[in-house]
Order: sequence, then structure tokens, then C-alpha cells
Amino acid sequence: MTAPVEGARSPRTGSTRRQFLLGGAVAGVGAVAAVGADLALNRPDATPEPASVPMNGDETVPFFGAHQAGIDTAAQAHGVFVGLDLHDDVDRDALARLMRLLTDDAARLTQGLPALADSEPELASSPARLTITFGVGPGFVGRAGGSTPAWLAPLPAFGVDRLRPDFSDGDLLLQIAGDDPLTVAHATRMLLKDARGFASIRWTQQGFRRAYGTERPGTTMRNLFGQVDGTTNPQPGTEDFDRVVWIDEGVLAGGTGMVIRRIRMGLDKWDRLDRSGRDASVGRTLANGAPLTGREEFDEPDFEAKTAIGFPVIPQFAHIRRARGEGAERIFRRAYNYDERPAGAEVSESGLLFVSFQADIERQFIPMQRRLDELDLLNEWTTPIGSAVFAIPPGCTEGGFIGDTLLRGR
Amino acid sequence: MTAPVEGARSPRTGSTRRQFLLGGAVAGVGAVAAVGADLALNRPDATPEPASVPMNGDETVPFFGAHQAGIDTAAQAHGVFVGLDLHDDVDRDALARLMRLLTDDAARLTQGLPALADSEPELASSPARLTITFGVGPGFVGRAGGSTPAWLAPLPAFGVDRLRPDFSDGDLLLQIAGDDPLTVAHATRMLLKDARGFASIRWTQQGFRRAYGTERPGTTMRNLFGQVDGTTNPQPGTEDFDRVVWIDEGVLAGGTGMVIRRIRMGLDKWDRLDRSGRDASVGRTLANGAPLTGREEFDEPDFEAKTAIGFPVIPQFAHIRRARGEGAERIFRRAYNYDERPAGAEVSESGLLFVSFQADIERQFIPMQRRLDELDLLNEWTTPIGSAVFAIPPGCTEGGFIGDTLLRGR
Repeated sequence: MTAPVEGARSPRTGSTRRQFLLGGAVAGVGAVAAVGADLALNRPDATPEPASVPMNGDETVPFFGAHQAGIDTAAQAHGVFVGLDLHDDVDRDALARLMRLLTDDAARLTQGLPALADSEPELASSPARLTITFGVGPGFVGRAGGSTPAWLAPLPAFGVDRLRPDFSDGDLLLQIAGDDPLTVAHATRMLLKDARGFASIRWTQQGFRRAYGTERPGTTMRNLFGQVDGTTNPQPGTEDFDRVVWIDEGVLAGGTGMVIRRIRMGLDKWDRLDRSGRDASVGRTLANGAPLTGREEFDEPDFEAKTAIGFPVIPQFAHIRRARGEGAERIFRRAYNYDERPAGAEVSESGLLFVSFQADIERQFIPMQRRLDELDLLNEWTTPIGSAVFAIPPGCTEGGFIGDTLLRGR
Repeated sequence: MTAPVEGARSPRTGSTRRQFLLGGAVAGVGAVAAVGADLALNRPDATPEPASVPMNGDETVPFFGAHQAGIDTAAQAHGVFVGLDLHDDVDRDALARLMRLLTDDAARLTQGLPALADSEPELASSPARLTITFGVGPGFVGRAGGSTPAWLAPLPAFGVDRLRPDFSDGDLLLQIAGDDPLTVAHATRMLLKDARGFASIRWTQQGFRRAYGTERPGTTMRNLFGQVDGTTNPQPGTEDFDRVVWIDEGVLAGGTGMVIRRIRMGLDKWDRLDRSGRDASVGRTLANGAPLTGREEFDEPDFEAKTAIGFPVIPQFAHIRRARGEGAERIFRRAYNYDERPAGAEVSESGLLFVSFQADIERQFIPMQRRLDELDLLNEWTTPIGSAVFAIPPGCTEGGFIGDTLLRGR
């Protein structure tokens, strides 16, 4: 592998080959541009909003490190998730060969280099912040012969679930995410070609968020209901984030637990709900994501506040009240929207690829999901139709491979 | 409608609200940035490649004009195409009501304004070069009572075709294209909600090209075979383009003809073809799209050139030799890639949404397609599985609506 070894960086800020060539000049240019805009405006009240963004095709996220990329990486515009079933004859040695192969592909492709057996190398040359993240299911860990964390199992059945096997479970997860859809499609295909001898596709899910350049970086995403989605997320680079996300001991130390659920949104039914009903069901205004007791998105909700006639301002059934965890019950969300070809008379086949990362799914995720299952007005318009749990192994250094702590680290 | 009337602009360069606010400062800042980069490099051979691109979310393409937008508009990253079947009871008056409604939606949404009955107005606020283009099929024109151009009919059957009705034909076409996938999804849904009383969805097709910011604007797209795709396109803004694309008389004057064909690419089979076989099948090198007789993408192919042993350098079966039209047989291509969830043991379900615009499909498109049907080595790896033809009515001015020349202009 030709990519340099990179230490753990949290949050992953990435680097660009062009920035390297320019010797850091680009950052300076950005500052010049910002100053230039303000001067040209000659208005003291000019907002510091950036008028331009760097070209993004050459932007890379380091592959090697203590953690896998694609978790604390600012979420890219496109995400493809593939659940694979291992072939029956794949044993522990074969798993190591598979993960060496896939790690090598990922280390190259994410740095803008073609995979070793790349049939269309030109499609690899614009990584656009491509990350490739691997997760392992119970079947993988079983064959690896390691001890399974208690939470590495299908989630308990929830009353709201209408799960389909073709969107659920799996032995090996690939998360391929990047800002360019052609690059993501090419990388996905290269990985699947190499995986084909070991595993078959169980499911594929494709999602999107705002494109690069559409919004200021750091804007909380909106889902297809129009909701600001992810306000309470811990911020990568903080101790809070590290505590919520990273496992701190055992063969998975430096890794995390991943839940991916496909949540169908009944947009046609949602249409019949008026604005105040929508705000109440979430507990936030759709306009800017502020809690019903506040004015700005990041205002702290006041769950004790009462209306003039004594009802809670944030209703008992509101999503944010039900989702709010005590103490340990916190997760990091990294969701994608999906919008596919509708069938029959439906106008949409849309929803959310709910993706969350947390060190201990049993302790952090399941209690919250139980509360939402019992009561959450949003359940009226949403239906989980897929669900899977994976352990995300730690990152690796050059020469190692993802999963090596599971496969040879005992 | 609150959007200003805009005259025909060709090519559509668009405008940004932010640029307006900055009073043109952004262009100056770009220049400062470029100079800054060169100074910082202090290298006389520094390439003039831009290091940054303007923020794109507020960028708009004018809706009103002599031509509909979305044809001579530089192709956006995401395209959704919807073929609709009109309900049986939709007569000429109902068609006019439908097109007024959809025109109003399009005029608003493309300028970053919510549709009149927008249920998620916040999702409309970042147009990111959204365009909405309408096409009419034979069924629409029949009910409108106008005379149908001879070419407004399904294409003749070709030997290579394996057409599926669920990707073919239709009475009304919506082309929704933009650089942001969330904006495109929202706009699509708003249009379909308003169309629902008049028509049902026959098919939906979703495609992508390079994301905004990945490559320099104007770079010819690559398809999933890795081919540079569209080199010989006439350039918007030239007389050549106007001659190829725009109809110059009758109720469709200022409009054009559209062919959309879903071409499945057998990527797994393509993998078995080596690099020189791939180059020969196209007649261009995959590396940079240069013809086999040239060095750069835009070099003119020399179809007479022979190898040392007397064979044509560009083989008889090569795609570019077979596609090359004499005189009138030229088209303007505006294709999108597709890459969907594969079924069964396949690693990919991928291909090209071939989209072309030409004033006269019978004269310009069909002879070329006949030649490709007879002999084109690329047929080995490609299969047309959908096909539809639409007339694209001219644009309209504020107060008018798309299709008004068909519906009241006789």
C-alpha cells in the first residue's frame, strides 16, 4: 500500500492532495477570499458566511488510524450500505484473506488510487471524501472464534417493527460513503467484486444527504419529513463523543457498535397532518428545529414547561421527550435519506436509513428504542422495515487489516 | 408567481441570490483566490486550476424563457425522470389545468420558493440549480387535439432491444434535475402530488453524474464503463447547438424532441474484456477519451487511418464509427448513470439513462440508432430495456404555462 500511515485523528478533518501540493496555501486563500468578500461588501454587518468552498474531488479522509473512518467523519452526501452473507465454506483463514483484500481496496480507493484489480481506474481518481467502513455481524464473529459482545445480536422485537429479511441482518457490513455518487458506485463495485468469492449480497441500501456545496458545513441535516434531524448528536472531537461512541476495552477497543434500521416514512399520510401537529409530534418546530420551549435549534428543551392551561408545552407523546435518554442512554446518529422508485399508486417510497453508533447497544440504544416503541407520536407515520446490528472493529495501521484484532488478536 | 420574467438565455448560466446580495463581489473573490494560490505557490508553472468553487445551494437557473430549462443547462448531478399516464377522464381543459398547476410549481421550486401547497417549505430553499422540464407523449398531444409531429411515436423496434413496459412510453414526462438530491426528491414529490388527480406514475428513473465540486465544470462525463461519454456533443450557446436541438416552426417552435432509453450495462461481462478490447470497442482510449487516431479528447477521429498491416485504426465495429452521423444525423446527449440495488447473484444493476435532444427524431436520431443496431461492438455489453419519446414544448413567459402553444395556440 502506498498511502502513508496516519495516526488517529479525531475528528477526521481530512487532507487534500491539492492542499499538500499547495503547501497549505489553500487555507490561506480561503481566508483571503473571506476578507475579500467583506472588503468588497464594505458592510460592517456582512455575515461571515463563506461565499465559496474548496474543490472537493481530491479531498481525502485518512484510512489508517485508531478508529475506522466514516464514523466521526462529517457525513458525506451519499452512503451505500451493503449487508453480505458469508458463503458456507468461509472459515477463519478465509475471513482473514477476505478482510486483507477488502482493507487493501479501501486503503487505496479512499486515497484516490485504483484498487489492485481495478477495471476502471479512472473512476477512482476523485475520492471526494470517500470512506469505507467495515462491520461484522454475529455470524462473522462466530466463525472468527472470538467472544461476541452481548449486544451483537438482532435487536429485540419491537411492536412497531414490520421487518423484511431483505433489509435485515447479515454477516458483514460495508458502508461506502462519499460526496460523489460516481465514485461511491465504483468503489462499491470494486469491493463487491473482491468479496464475491467469499460472500453474497444480502441487501443493499442507498441514501443521501445534502450535496457538497449546498449548505454550510455543519448544518444539521433535514429528513424527508422536513425535520431537522440530529440536533442532539455529540460532536466528533469532544470527550462526550468519545465516551458515547468508542469501545474502550477488549478486541473491539477503538471500535463501536452500529445499528442500521430502514424506516419507511408514510409521506402521503404525513401530508394530512398540519404544521402544528407536526411540530407537536416531534417536540420541535420544523422551521428551524428549535424545541417548542425555545427559539433556536440548539436551545435546551424545557420538559417541565407548561402551557397557560397546564399542559406540557412539549407533549408527553413528542419524539424528543420519548427519545431523551437518562445518563448513559445516548447515541451518535449518522442517518441518510432514501427515496426510491415508488410502486403502484404511491407517490413516494421514501424514508430514513437510521444509522447510529454507540459503544454498547444494549445499554445505550435499546432502552431508548423501547421507550419510542411504547409511545412516540412519530410512530404514526413511520415503520421500521429493516434492522441490523454490527460490531465495527477498530481501525488498523498500514500492513494490518480491519478485523485483525478479531482474527489474530486473541 | 413572484419570480421575475427572464428572457431566453443560451446557454443558461443562471444566477445566485448570494451573488446578487454580494453585488458581484464573488467573481472578484474567485480571482483573488486564484492569484493568491499562484503567489503562494510561487511557481511559474502553477496550473490555473480553480482551488475553490462558489457555494451552490442558492444557485438558480431561470425558469421562464423561449426554451425550457434543463436542456441547454449544464447537466446537474442528479436527474429524476418520471413517465406519467393520464387518467381516462382527462380532457383538453383538464390538461390545461394540469399544466398550469405544474408550471406554477416548477416556476417556484426552481427559484428556491416553496410550491403553493408545499408541505415542507424548508426543503425548497436550496435550489442548487434545480430545473424542471416537461415533455408530452403521443397520448397527451392526441387529447390536446393538435397535429402530432411524425416522430412523436415509439421508436421502431431494434434487434438489440429488450424493452420493458415499466420503463417505456408514457403521456407526460417530468425531468427534475439539480445538484442536490434532497431538493430533487422534494421537488419530485411536490409535482407528483399535484399531478396525482390527473395522472398516475408509469415509471420513475433516477440517475447521477459527478457531484458539484468534484470536477472542473465542463469536464465530459464518464459512464460506469469508465468511458468518456459525450465528447462530440454540440456546445450550448453555439449556432450548431441551436440547429441540432431547437425546433424552428409550428406549435413546438422553441421546443425539441427527446429520446430517453434505459440501457443496462453488463458490468460483470465487461470485466472480462481487457483494456485494448475496451478501447477498440469504443474507438477511443478510456484513459482520456482521445480517438484511437489522436492524443487528446477533442482531437478529430481519422476514420481513414490504417495500421501497419492495413486494418483501420478505428475498427469497423467501433462505436464512434457507427454512431458518427452524416450531415443532419446529429443529436445532443444529456445522459445520467444509474446504479441500483442488484437482485440475486449480480454484483451490479447499473447502466445509462441515455437522454438525447434533437429537433427531428426521425431525421437525426433514428438513422444513427439503425446503424448502431446493425453493428456496434458495444452491443455485446449493453441492452436497451426501456425507451420513450417525448416532444418538449417551448418555454413560456410569466402568466403562460408550458404546453400552452399546444393547448390554446392553434
